[in-house]
Amino acid sequence: MAHHKIILDCDPGIDDAVAILLALASPEEIELVGITTVAGNVPLERTAYNARRICTLAGREDIPVYAGCPRPMLETEGLHSTVHGDDGLGSVKLPEPGFALQAQHAVDFIIHSVHAEPGQITLCPIGPMTNIALAIIKDPSIVPKIKQIVFMGGAAFCQGNVSPVAEFNIFVDPLAAHVVLSAGIPQIMLGLDVTLQAKIDAAYLDELQQVNSLLKTTTAMMRSYGAADPCLHDPCAIAWLIDPSLFKGIRGNISVSYQDGRHRGQTLVAVKSRHLENDATNIEVITEVNNPLLLKMLSERLSRL
Amino acid sequence: MAHHKIILDCDPGIDDAVAILLALASPEEIELVGITTVAGNVPLERTAYNARRICTLAGREDIPVYAGCPRPMLETEGLHSTVHGDDGLGSVKLPEPGFALQAQHAVDFIIHSVHAEPGQITLCPIGPMTNIALAIIKDPSIVPKIKQIVFMGGAAFCQGNVSPVAEFNIFVDPLAAHVVLSAGIPQIMLGLDVTLQAKIDAAYLDELQQVNSLLKTTTAMMRSYGAADPCLHDPCAIAWLIDPSLFKGIRGNISVSYQDGRHRGQTLVAVKSRHLENDATNIEVITEVNNPLLLKMLSERLSRL
Amino acid sequence: MAHHKIILDCDPGIDDAVAILLALASPEEIELVGITTVAGNVPLERTAYNARRICTLAGREDIPVYAGCPRPMLETEGLHSTVHGDDGLGSVKLPEPGFALQAQHAVDFIIHSVHAEPGQITLCPIGPMTNIALAIIKDPSIVPKIKQIVFMGGAAFCQGNVSPVAEFNIFVDPLAAHVVLSAGIPQIMLGLDVTLQAKIDAAYLDELQQVNSLLKTTTAMMRSYGAADPCLHDPCAIAWLIDPSLFKGIRGNISVSYQDGRHRGQTLVAVKSRHLENDATNIEVITEVNNPLLLKMLSERLSRL
Amino acid sequence: MAHHKIILDCDPGIDDAVAILLALASPEEIELVGITTVAGNVPLERTAYNARRICTLAGREDIPVYAGCPRPMLETEGLHSTVHGDDGLGSVKLPEPGFALQAQHAVDFIIHSVHAEPGQITLCPIGPMTNIALAIIKDPSIVPKIKQIVFMGGAAFCQGNVSPVAEFNIFVDPLAAHVVLSAGIPQIMLGLDVTLQAKIDAAYLDELQQVNSLLKTTTAMMRSYGAADPCLHDPCAIAWLIDPSLFKGIRGNISVSYQDGRHRGQTLVAVKSRHLENDATNIEVITEVNNPLLLKMLSERLSRL
Repeated sequence: MAHHKIILDCDPGIDDAVAILLALASPEEIELVGITTVAGNVPLERTAYNARRICTLAGREDIPVYAGCPRPMLETEGLHSTVHGDDGLGSVKLPEPGFALQAQHAVDFIIHSVHAEPGQITLCPIGPMTNIALAIIKDPSIVPKIKQIVFMGGAAFCQGNVSPVAEFNIFVDPLAAHVVLSAGIPQIMLGLDVTLQAKIDAAYLDELQQVNSLLKTTTAMMRSYGAADPCLHDPCAIAWLIDPSLFKGIRGNISVSYQDGRHRGQTLVAVKSRHLENDATNIEVITEVNNPLLLKMLSERLSRL
Repeated sequence: MAHHKIILDCDPGIDDAVAILLALASPEEIELVGITTVAGNVPLERTAYNARRICTLAGREDIPVYAGCPRPMLETEGLHSTVHGDDGLGSVKLPEPGFALQAQHAVDFIIHSVHAEPGQITLCPIGPMTNIALAIIKDPSIVPKIKQIVFMGGAAFCQGNVSPVAEFNIFVDPLAAHVVLSAGIPQIMLGLDVTLQAKIDAAYLDELQQVNSLLKTTTAMMRSYGAADPCLHDPCAIAWLIDPSLFKGIRGNISVSYQDGRHRGQTLVAVKSRHLENDATNIEVITEVNNPLLLKMLSERLSRL
Repeated sequence: MAHHKIILDCDPGIDDAVAILLALASPEEIELVGITTVAGNVPLERTAYNARRICTLAGREDIPVYAGCPRPMLETEGLHSTVHGDDGLGSVKLPEPGFALQAQHAVDFIIHSVHAEPGQITLCPIGPMTNIALAIIKDPSIVPKIKQIVFMGGAAFCQGNVSPVAEFNIFVDPLAAHVVLSAGIPQIMLGLDVTLQAKIDAAYLDELQQVNSLLKTTTAMMRSYGAADPCLHDPCAIAWLIDPSLFKGIRGNISVSYQDGRHRGQTLVAVKSRHLENDATNIEVITEVNNPLLLKMLSERLSRL
Repeated sequence: MAHHKIILDCDPGIDDAVAILLALASPEEIELVGITTVAGNVPLERTAYNARRICTLAGREDIPVYAGCPRPMLETEGLHSTVHGDDGLGSVKLPEPGFALQAQHAVDFIIHSVHAEPGQITLCPIGPMTNIALAIIKDPSIVPKIKQIVFMGGAAFCQGNVSPVAEFNIFVDPLAAHVVLSAGIPQIMLGLDVTLQAKIDAAYLDELQQVNSLLKTTTAMMRSYGAADPCLHDPCAIAWLIDPSLFKGIRGNISVSYQDGRHRGQTLVAVKSRHLENDATNIEVITEVNNPLLLKMLSERLSRL
């Protein structure tokens, strides 16, 4: 298995929380250099707070957490989601953060980390891409030094969840997605095409909650979320890093519709032999997951915590 | 079965030709008031000529054929297709037209026919919708008198065939599609979502060509076309009129992207309980066909000719 | 002086009425082949009625008047204006029409006239260009046979009167303007750049109303209109045909913004040596008028009636 | 006279250089807290180098200079200008910078300065607004603490200099302009409407160059530039801060067209009593300057250096 040094850029969010836990539970494959947070499912202060609550829950107060941009690039306030509850984590009882936020801005942490280990860092955005876009605009010299972007977001061949054409993460800051996804960095997309296949059910959660008290808490969050959306969107990005053999994909060329209006946040993907005349692909779009194996991996890993 | 008085607005084109033959073979359900032609798969003069060649092939020189608009609404020249061969009918040997074009312009024939039989006429566009759009703009008082629009075109939940988002008929004249599909007329969409399921194969054609000389000619056309695209796109619209029980659909709200650029010709469909807050649907989008039964109907009907 | 055979395509409207009268008063330069009307300042039925009232006022019941399109190309209903009063002619007492509308649709009259006298007909639209656009789409073979388009509309180098960028005639049907102005026909634009210079004042009207009873009625309309807008917009197009030496202009390249939104109806004009790299001009944009001489011509001509 | 603490955000550029000199020559009215540079007329490294060369020329090596963003928000590379010569300062012999760039990024210097003196700092962008936009997105809490934005850019009521509708600074990064100009900060626009009136001629330069060696160098730059564009665009922003009584303006509501295409970079301004229904103005658009007094002020001030 490959070993990945990642910055997890997120907006917890319940499925973000599961993604963090999955990353923390997988030290063989994943070295979590830092967690950066962004406005998304809930406002920035809440995502920065929630990320630390989850690390504290997992006993990992050593993970540095950085707050980033409190708004998308274009509007003064972003859209938030309702499926994560008022506090973003399903109002489940969680420990208070046992450690402070880093003073550095997430944008600067990203820039600094990439320069410090050129070619080594995988960026893993599972929320709106505002932080990464700003890092690229502020210092474009990081671009060739980023190993890859593995992200949850978009809907290439299926309908969106915010509009007929747009998925939430891309819809919230389509300009940021455009900046990041057109930068020329190797990139893997885990969008609704695949994450809608990553379904959990009550029986799975019933079994998982028996394991230990951490999983009792975690499954409580997942239950809260699952009523509205039973899919493991964000954990798919981490799972792909851990074991890409669970997934199948297709090479394509992505462009993001960043204009306002009905197409806002659409991720147009041209695929070879239909709409793509040559090999000018810029993305691997994941389209299939072996969900039983994914769920098995998830429960095995989370049980270690 | 219902009985439909239809104007078939088409751009033959091989699958248009099969649609004409299917309509002519189904007098119990379909009364073909007239055929109007438009620039599309091939230029206007060619579609007007081909429509008459097909009627002549079927021995139906009584069907009035009208030429319409030689260009889409916005550009001075439309996109043509390559899958129908240079002459639009696969360069298969066909009779010369045994009758003349009508002098009246297709736009005026549509206006006149709808006024003559208010509430009776089904418009069945299986090419770009330029003629119908112009009829509506020239005389909007026809709108409430049109019974329904049953059309082949668009791609609601799947990729397009001209671009990742657009199907050919809509792409060629997206403005016309916008004018027609936003007019408030009852409408049924048979787009790529369903027509890509309507596949024929060599064995089917082998059997069909044995029936008689007309089907020998017809299957020769279909073979030429089938190399590039083995789907019965246009006949689906006629087949739905003959027997809607072969199909399944969903109510939705359609809007057409008529601006130039990457979204040109996209048919956005919002469906209830996801992106549609109330019942404001304006279309029935057909999403499934029982293809074995469809093929059976087609061969039975065509064998009568 | 040149002699022009014109079709005046209008939406009377008070300044349209003055344009009609100026044309009728100038038989040496202007042969009015017919008047076509369109929805614009007021709805279609009203413009078709008003055009005949004005001809009747001038004792010219021989002028054929044709009704055209009751709506713009894109929307089911167009924007109307408020400056022309409820009836479109300032609620001034006018004779009832002494003659009937022609049965032929304006679109078909335009097509027929151009074919009947190829290279001879000047189209003179002083309202939204819906009729001419439909004629071009319905039968593009008229394009090379149209002598020229001399139109009132647009704002090239100044602000608009409907929005910061759009003039009323273009704003109402920007798609029609795009179709017409990109067709490759020789064209002269008399937009707000020049028509805002064509101002009348109370003293001028006081003198004009003394001449005869027709001018008493005409000036009453102009007074009603002048309270809101004291400019002779539409008559400028006729005046240019009568004596272009009163005007100055510049060659440029025009394109019309036909998308919805803030730019709707904008007439972008690139002029040589700034934004135009070569001689690819497609329009003469009139930018100046000698207003004293224009007013003198107007009163001399109208006094003949 | 008011006293202004300003951050001059620029892309020298010859008229930027004159603006820097005018600011340095006016300590009674202007306290130059720092110069931030951006990619614009020439690439970032060049603007950061040129700003320091100009300060060195003026003997002001105490002015801190910060480099900012090397690209606009959307594209990986911005448009550059040709009128400033290969080196951005007319290839005139200038001293090498006598001091180093600050290590801090311009974006962070702006954020830090505004927080350090809330309500005191005037931002004065005379190039593309990328730096200020990024500061606002990275830390929106600075917005209410910015005293005002006084900028050179845009074309409200006249044609642009890059396209018929767009001025260079806005065109290069229209998204940044949108972010900044829609943020709700008090703002004064000195666009082409006024700066095209601020013309210099050869006689003026002949006189100015006699004063001293610094002005001999400065006028040499201005001559190089003046061949292509004899207007003091950027110095107008500084001159307005020094003496606003030389200028006249109008309140309006500005919005920036940040979509690609023909409208890119257009600054639409609605003004009261035409296109603005209420008092919702968000900008003072300067439309007139007393150029003789402006030129007199410039030569008096520059002569002090």
